[in-house]
Amino acid sequence: MSFALNEVIEVLERTPRTLQHFLSGLSPGWLHCNEGEGTWNAVEVVNHLIEGEKTNWIPRLEWILQEGEERPFPPFDRYAHLSVQKESTIEQKLTEFTQLREESVARLKAMMHDEVLERTGTHPAFGTVKARELISTWAVHDLTHIAQIVRIMAERYRADVGPWVEYLGILKK
Amino acid sequence: MSFALNEVIEVLERTPRTLQHFLSGLSPGWLHCNEGEGTWNAVEVVNHLIEGEKTNWIPRLEWILQEGEERPFPPFDRYAHLSVQKESTIEQKLTEFTQLREESVARLKAMMHDEVLERTGTHPAFGTVKARELISTWAVHDLTHIAQIVRIMAERYRADVGPWVEYLGILKK
Repeated sequence: MSFALNEVIEVLERTPRTLQHFLSGLSPGWLHCNEGEGTWNAVEVVNHLIEGEKTNWIPRLEWILQEGEERPFPPFDRYAHLSVQKESTIEQKLTEFTQLREESVARLKAMMHDEVLERTGTHPAFGTVKARELISTWAVHDLTHIAQIVRIMAERYRADVGPWVEYLGILKK
Repeated sequence: MSFALNEVIEVLERTPRTLQHFLSGLSPGWLHCNEGEGTWNAVEVVNHLIEGEKTNWIPRLEWILQEGEERPFPPFDRYAHLSVQKESTIEQKLTEFTQLREESVARLKAMMHDEVLERTGTHPAFGTVKARELISTWAVHDLTHIAQIVRIMAERYRADVGPWVEYLGILKK
């Protein structure tokens, strides 16, 4: 086991500013490309991260502390962000994500200490889970979606790299 | 084909600052973990990116403009960075990468215009390649290594996420 709360928080704190520096000001071609029908573009990934701050991570941790294993988590709609209003710019979305994440991390720090990390709740699909596992998943979920964004962008240039396609791990099918 | 020089430059300019905001100040556990024997850690990936600025991208583009298809590129040692001296901190390495990349992008802008993009050179392994393909590869190579860094970090928490491992695309084997 590698878990250390301070190290998880290092990742959680870095994700919004990393995406701000990577995505702000990018051309629409990069922001709106996807990997084919039914897949997400970078803006939709950011919407999904915003949705997670509002309805997934901290609410589920609070649920564990309040309910224990008595009642399972309310289901989380992993596609809720697809119906989000589209008017805001990527910069506005990233600012919103940054603010929500700052609040989440503050609540995480206030709520968590060693004893509480081992508390358990009931996931609707796979049963007993620990607070510590949920917090770990939160950080790895960030990493998954950073990887997704760069993979989407790489895919856009699949034909452009010519024979180098064989050397670029990110374009391996 | 998606190629647009200004859009490629958007990616090339963002990679160093993205990695600076993501990696600076991270705990040694994150910086030194890898995916098993013979694989790289995040610091080694940054060393590899530095090496590419010095010996791969701009030197090969200049080779295409000077030599055309006459003589193949000199071979590029993709493992040269593994013998790099280790004394500098990750912050120093990221500063070095940022400075080298700024110089590279300035030279790219000075050297490239529409006619030149279609010029060809000879790759030692796969023959005729276009300047435009090499420039595209440079950007996708950045994306590959950003994806690699987050994948390495996610791997460290494979056991910690508990049953969520099935839901996290980045941990799919």
